[in-house]
Amino acid sequence: MAHHADLGLIGLAVMGRNLVLNLADHGYTVAVYNRSPERTDAFVTTEASDATVIATHSLSELIESLERPRVVMLMIKAGSPVDEQIEQLAPLLDRGDIIIDGGNSLFTDTEQRTERLGELGIEYVGMGISGGEEGARHGPSIMPGGSAAAWPRIRPIYTAIAAEAEGEPCCEWVGPGGAGHYVKMVHNGIEYGDMQIIAEAYDIMRRGLGMDAASIQPVFETWNDGRLDSFLIEITAEVMATTDDDGLPLLDRVLDVAGQKGTGKWTVIASMEQPAPTTLVAEAVYARIVSALVDERAVASQALAGPNGGLVDDIDQVISDLEDALYASKIVSYAQGFMLFEAASDEFGWDLDLGTIASLWRAGCIIRSRFLADITSAYRSDPDLSNVLLDGFFRDAIIDAEPGWRRTVARAVAAGIPIPAYSSALAFYDGLRSQRLPANLIQAQRDHFGAHTYERIDRPRGEFIHSDWGS
Amino acid sequence: MAHHADLGLIGLAVMGRNLVLNLADHGYTVAVYNRSPERTDAFVTTEASDATVIATHSLSELIESLERPRVVMLMIKAGSPVDEQIEQLAPLLDRGDIIIDGGNSLFTDTEQRTERLGELGIEYVGMGISGGEEGARHGPSIMPGGSAAAWPRIRPIYTAIAAEAEGEPCCEWVGPGGAGHYVKMVHNGIEYGDMQIIAEAYDIMRRGLGMDAASIQPVFETWNDGRLDSFLIEITAEVMATTDDDGLPLLDRVLDVAGQKGTGKWTVIASMEQPAPTTLVAEAVYARIVSALVDERAVASQALAGPNGGLVDDIDQVISDLEDALYASKIVSYAQGFMLFEAASDEFGWDLDLGTIASLWRAGCIIRSRFLADITSAYRSDPDLSNVLLDGFFRDAIIDAEPGWRRTVARAVAAGIPIPAYSSALAFYDGLRSQRLPANLIQAQRDHFGAHTYERIDRPRGEFIHSDWGS
Repeated sequence: MAHHADLGLIGLAVMGRNLVLNLADHGYTVAVYNRSPERTDAFVTTEASDATVIATHSLSELIESLERPRVVMLMIKAGSPVDEQIEQLAPLLDRGDIIIDGGNSLFTDTEQRTERLGELGIEYVGMGISGGEEGARHGPSIMPGGSAAAWPRIRPIYTAIAAEAEGEPCCEWVGPGGAGHYVKMVHNGIEYGDMQIIAEAYDIMRRGLGMDAASIQPVFETWNDGRLDSFLIEITAEVMATTDDDGLPLLDRVLDVAGQKGTGKWTVIASMEQPAPTTLVAEAVYARIVSALVDERAVASQALAGPNGGLVDDIDQVISDLEDALYASKIVSYAQGFMLFEAASDEFGWDLDLGTIASLWRAGCIIRSRFLADITSAYRSDPDLSNVLLDGFFRDAIIDAEPGWRRTVARAVAAGIPIPAYSSALAFYDGLRSQRLPANLIQAQRDHFGAHTYERIDRPRGEFIHSDWGS
Repeated sequence: MAHHADLGLIGLAVMGRNLVLNLADHGYTVAVYNRSPERTDAFVTTEASDATVIATHSLSELIESLERPRVVMLMIKAGSPVDEQIEQLAPLLDRGDIIIDGGNSLFTDTEQRTERLGELGIEYVGMGISGGEEGARHGPSIMPGGSAAAWPRIRPIYTAIAAEAEGEPCCEWVGPGGAGHYVKMVHNGIEYGDMQIIAEAYDIMRRGLGMDAASIQPVFETWNDGRLDSFLIEITAEVMATTDDDGLPLLDRVLDVAGQKGTGKWTVIASMEQPAPTTLVAEAVYARIVSALVDERAVASQALAGPNGGLVDDIDQVISDLEDALYASKIVSYAQGFMLFEAASDEFGWDLDLGTIASLWRAGCIIRSRFLADITSAYRSDPDLSNVLLDGFFRDAIIDAEPGWRRTVARAVAAGIPIPAYSSALAFYDGLRSQRLPANLIQAQRDHFGAHTYERIDRPRGEFIHSDWGS
């Protein structure tokens, strides 16, 4: 067979198929392979019948069909399937060939694979891809990292198929080793946070103000015209407007048990390992865990007393304050996420460019928003920005939103409506702006019961003292 | 040398030395070994000069001196030192001999070591020990787990040296594999939580009410006579009363940067792996992380606006509500910790007895309290109790405390004092008693952008549906 495919792609589930069609749209010839040949044949004879796609039925046939240096992209389930595929693939490849893992792999796995394949002379790329099926088909956000030697070869391909924001492709090299999958992991963690803060707004309108989906819909639609303009707010308005067969809101029929696939959990674990205080993502993950306790909640709702919704304030004020709460919490969540990047970049020596990361998320991905253009601007105007909260624009924005945010938290607390993300974000904000926290007591306790020693405010850092407390 | 020591102990840092003295007090002869022989010699000629302690200067000498089946206890730094010590020790031991790791090892490490040594016929015990130096010397809380075959041999020794509560030793077998270290890890996570909720009370009195340490001291002393009666509240009162050389409160000179040694972080990671919603421990760990951001806090305290303390309510009411907030948050934190045990017990097949675990913590350890006697009673009166919050005593207690807790959160939010633990606990409480959470929106969003499917309230669980949202 002639060597004429620009790249090969393994794994023809919906994300893989849509990426192939996107690549073909941009003039690339893609050789495809799937474990079950029926799926390959079905794809090239239906969806891809007009596309520059070559069906192959063995890995060697796939490899034979590729231009050199070869590029093979994996779009398969994360975990051991990736290792198994690499095991079969590596012996067929030559030095300088490239393997790209486009799945949601754990960054430490990617780190190890990059190193292991590097020893064989194979360039390995862990590539975060966000945007769901639609993004894959028409322009996702792409976060590649790993073996930098691969970048010049694959750059034209992936910048061509990526989403565009303000004339720039949402695809840029982010760093070595597992950096690409790390960035995607934190993207997903932030996505958990964004969804939770929207859910809390919905709950306050539903349980606090007694609004139904139809009356909540215009609120999200209006918010989507302002500072909260984003894909997730947009689809929330669409969800509110969707009706069941009987014309009633479909949302009301959806069971309140949120699923998760692991990247939120990984972000929290990474924040503990670093450490970095991504409290909002953690509360969002925990909120999904609590949502899954359906039977326990049914019992507890009868057994445990407290207020149950109902806000007495003016409805317009409540909703206006709610927009402030959502916006301020969002600023905190992204500030926390970027603090995690700073810490990880230092720890792993990745030299992450935070402005570039923000710019990749402006379009194509699930968290795309006007907000991310603002974060991009913040880092572009000050590449050494120490914290998103200290950028002029965001500092003014959060100070402006702070009173309404605080009123929202107080109101929800009084009404018994759970707002773990809003209140955790506010506690973080109040903690960060505390020149003196009560951690001095924690240090005194630790020194008292365990002789763990402590530092003094009137002595240099690093000088540790033990005292005889309480005697 | 004659075989006449009851057990051997390796590692003569303060915890190890105090355990040896405690063992000797109870009539046991202990052979000791330390990497640096100077420390061994110093110990037996000073602190242990009157004790039944045998100095040994090599591992083979240590092993030679022991009664069979031999018991060797490690009191060394967790991590690779434990593996290295086991590596040297194993060839010297016979089948049926016992190694005990009394350090704060990660439970997964203990799990692997138990299995590996089991293949050699060596019984391995991962033993959680809490109580600090004082506990080790005069009666700690002891949480052994691992190879159950070891228990009859070591039971008399460790029940003798353990703390006592209501006539029972605070030492009982908790389960196989890494169960002992898991229970100790969660103990420490809960300890992080207990310290954070006390710190928040301190902060509200200090920044909210403008009280100094001397005037805060009697508040904690009074609380220690009631439902909050506990070691940590007791030492907090002592800390408040401790003065520096100039007679001013020493606490005011302590730098507000809280250290941590890893078990809090491990608890949060375990909660994510399970999963189980230990939100309060997570917020406590994050609060310590934020405390370490001294420079960022100094800048943020100038840049970020908001209220800065000052409560207008009646001081007695504020303090009375504060006691409710602390107590209610504590109930939530323990309920969450025991939910984690339930989940881990199922996952690892440990068959943990939650009442036994609570009973081990009643005395000897850092979190010892009247509260733990109440939890012990709750599980003893209903071994199948599904949640601490649903026990009659605790349900009534939290319902009673709920209004003051809620007022405390609202007050602190209004005053700009960070209360991540109180507010997170309240959000959890309100979430658990919510028959319907807004997670239906999260499921609808996920199905909209990613075709992740959802369940319906009017269809059986496990039936997953995809809808065409917004069209």
